[in-house]
Amino acid sequence: MTASVLDYIFNPRSIAIAGVSPDLARPNIAQAFVNSLKDFGYKGDIYPLHPAGGEIFGLKVYKNIKDIPNNVDYVVSAIPARYTPQLITDCVVKKVKIVHLFTSGYSEIEDHIGLELENEIVKIARSGGVRLIGPNCMGTYCPATGMTFAAEYPDQKGFPKTSGQVGLVSQSGGNTIYAIRQCAERGVYFSKAISYGNATDLNESDYLEYFADDDETRLVAMYIEGLKEGQRFKYAVKKALKTKPVIINKGGNTETGARTCTSHTSAMAGSAKIWRSFIKQTGAILVEGMDELVDVIVAFTKMPVPHGRNAVVIGTGGGVGVQAADDITNAGLFLPMLNPEVRKQLNSIYGTEAGSMFRNPVDSPPFGGVKNHIRAIKAIADSNDIDIIILHFGFDIWAMVSRTIPLQPFVETVSELVDIIKKPLAIVLHYCTDPKSRVLEDEVAHKFVNMGLPVYPSISRAANAISKYITYHEYRLKNLKDRD
Amino acid sequence: MTASVLDYIFNPRSIAIAGVSPDLARPNIAQAFVNSLKDFGYKGDIYPLHPAGGEIFGLKVYKNIKDIPNNVDYVVSAIPARYTPQLITDCVVKKVKIVHLFTSGYSEIEDHIGLELENEIVKIARSGGVRLIGPNCMGTYCPATGMTFAAEYPDQKGFPKTSGQVGLVSQSGGNTIYAIRQCAERGVYFSKAISYGNATDLNESDYLEYFADDDETRLVAMYIEGLKEGQRFKYAVKKALKTKPVIINKGGNTETGARTCTSHTSAMAGSAKIWRSFIKQTGAILVEGMDELVDVIVAFTKMPVPHGRNAVVIGTGGGVGVQAADDITNAGLFLPMLNPEVRKQLNSIYGTEAGSMFRNPVDSPPFGGVKNHIRAIKAIADSNDIDIIILHFGFDIWAMVSRTIPLQPFVETVSELVDIIKKPLAIVLHYCTDPKSRVLEDEVAHKFVNMGLPVYPSISRAANAISKYITYHEYRLKNLKDRD
Repeated sequence: MTASVLDYIFNPRSIAIAGVSPDLARPNIAQAFVNSLKDFGYKGDIYPLHPAGGEIFGLKVYKNIKDIPNNVDYVVSAIPARYTPQLITDCVVKKVKIVHLFTSGYSEIEDHIGLELENEIVKIARSGGVRLIGPNCMGTYCPATGMTFAAEYPDQKGFPKTSGQVGLVSQSGGNTIYAIRQCAERGVYFSKAISYGNATDLNESDYLEYFADDDETRLVAMYIEGLKEGQRFKYAVKKALKTKPVIINKGGNTETGARTCTSHTSAMAGSAKIWRSFIKQTGAILVEGMDELVDVIVAFTKMPVPHGRNAVVIGTGGGVGVQAADDITNAGLFLPMLNPEVRKQLNSIYGTEAGSMFRNPVDSPPFGGVKNHIRAIKAIADSNDIDIIILHFGFDIWAMVSRTIPLQPFVETVSELVDIIKKPLAIVLHYCTDPKSRVLEDEVAHKFVNMGLPVYPSISRAANAISKYITYHEYRLKNLKDRD
Repeated sequence: MTASVLDYIFNPRSIAIAGVSPDLARPNIAQAFVNSLKDFGYKGDIYPLHPAGGEIFGLKVYKNIKDIPNNVDYVVSAIPARYTPQLITDCVVKKVKIVHLFTSGYSEIEDHIGLELENEIVKIARSGGVRLIGPNCMGTYCPATGMTFAAEYPDQKGFPKTSGQVGLVSQSGGNTIYAIRQCAERGVYFSKAISYGNATDLNESDYLEYFADDDETRLVAMYIEGLKEGQRFKYAVKKALKTKPVIINKGGNTETGARTCTSHTSAMAGSAKIWRSFIKQTGAILVEGMDELVDVIVAFTKMPVPHGRNAVVIGTGGGVGVQAADDITNAGLFLPMLNPEVRKQLNSIYGTEAGSMFRNPVDSPPFGGVKNHIRAIKAIADSNDIDIIILHFGFDIWAMVSRTIPLQPFVETVSELVDIIKKPLAIVLHYCTDPKSRVLEDEVAHKFVNMGLPVYPSISRAANAISKYITYHEYRLKNLKDRD
């Protein structure tokens, strides 16, 4: 029942936007909604609404939704909260399916008027069969149907028009934007995303249930500040996990964080301890922060499942190797000593003295030449002791020679290896310091992303994401066994 | 005694570099040492050494150090390990003060030959009054005297020629480079730095004692893999702490990390638990990783000492505010609710409804105008409840409007506030996703750095660094009281 209504969220045949100033000299956020949909290629009808009437972007501005001659599936409300009861009353008459309330000023504010208003609009909507997204949120993104709240702007990248396999359910608009953009830089795209705010009508469980059944979504990522229905959500997570991974970032894990959730989306954040045990029971993946959410998504979408936790770290630098060893261990992966046979091979390939830093991490000679690098890494990857290969490159380490000298062989080596190595392979490009070098770093990162590889900014972040990826599959394997 | 010899490390009157290929068509690392010193403006004499003789970069290449007609204070060895006993024997004859062994292949390799060679060169050096830096290290950097191992290259930034107040003692060359460059981007410069490798003769305590007495060094930062003399080091840290802060990043905190230290610099890393309690006893600041080392240095050098742990976080975004609240709390700072009087002022300044997200974090209206922002932040900063002000800006949150619109007022606001607010003020520019925006981010970051402000890439990193800065001063205060 809910599912069929929710189809309208990502695939409405027509959209009305309330609050569109018809005066281009007075830009407002509702204008931006119209503009974004047009730019993004939304195919349905777009109806701007404003009491002043007029015309904007070549579209007629209707004074009232009831004046629109055709059906309206979906309404975006960007008008002040006090006018929304009337808007929703009109939407009921117009038989609108979904109202997305971008509008804020409801239960998240301290004033009791906000809560009363929120209760009032829910009552009107429920009695008239209208479902609400929000209030106090950015709404929906679906590249396949052209739904978006962010487009390209001259000085920045907007949201990608490319569809992917990840579904995003986020209580925060900013975090939605962050996840979509960060993922795009890493070569990961979304089937659908929703920023859902106060969740006064449709809530986290509705969205999760929808994504669980959605064939275009292979993995669900969530940012949650508080649950509206705890037990239902637990059931929804377990059900979703039967067919796809669920990754959850929970905001408000401290008392102050929980207080901030209340100010932000009126959410009751609950105890971090309870959350942790709750997530552990379901088998969902709990992450800390949006960066980790993105890192874990990258592992799930860009790597085959590792057969074990034995990693090898290969790259130039001693101090960075020590840090790598600590980071790998702290993330719950292992860094086994390379076996003597492989190390003998490395010494013979590179013509180095016995006992060079080839134990693991491997401090690879920077000027070994592409063919030697390929032979060396292939020899390591073929070893039965190794499940995961992490190759890293630090731009800042090349203080005495041009860094382009070792960079080009590194890129060439990886581009050859990507077809040869069948084990999980991750690339780490250490965050570099000077702006000029960052441009170079970005170019190289995109090359690796275009090869379909997972790219991370530090060994610590790579190891942590890969470890959680493995934990999920260990859990699945264990549960399959338990069922036998 | 040691101190006077150590003066030659950073201020030698002449330098000979062993292993300089006289053939420009066959570039090697020793050539790069010569080139770096020349480019960096080293004023003393430079003598390239190579058995082939000849000329390079307009300098005569001597076949043997004994052929050099003048005194030589300092020698860089970039020749294979097996030739170094003879070189050091010659250095003894020549009455050289310091030999820096860039050369590796000693006790850090598995082969017993390495350890034997290392013992041999120490014996020769000690008997002849020559002191050794390294082996297996990058050596010294001192902008005041033109000592360096990294210069400007066409495609990248080298080391800055600007002198500062920070002294760096690092067992890893890569970490030395990383710290110097990262700090430069954040507006922090070094008095002197040393990468000291295996520490077979001069060790961590020698360098720390030197920096403790060095008037040009106001703060000592260290990266250590293992101690050569534990008790002496403890005493050296306590002594240094009487006059300046000591910040220590210890590598090799896991078993695998410790094993890697041995491969890298032959260091015995010891137990992480013992280290922690050891550092706690001395009052030095223990950090995890090089990024945190740099972050803490930035707090110490760019902020007045906060009078307490009460922070306010101001910026746009709800989800980011929730994360900020968690991060601030986890770092050991507090985020007190702003008092009703201040919140009333904010509502009146911004013309917002009562209960907007002004509790703390403050979700500041992006389009409030510079004058209003200044009034609002000033009102918050004047509150007695607040010790630290953290202003943050997220480039990625501006999905619907050009991000340059809120950015310009943000920069203007801060540039006005920097003279008005006397309390510690930190800027957070959230790491942004797309390469084009990063260029903008770097430009803005440099503006703030040039205002003398501490700039961080996340609230978590800022809060953690500030918290450790406060802990150091709390410890000092407590110790002063204990002495009364």
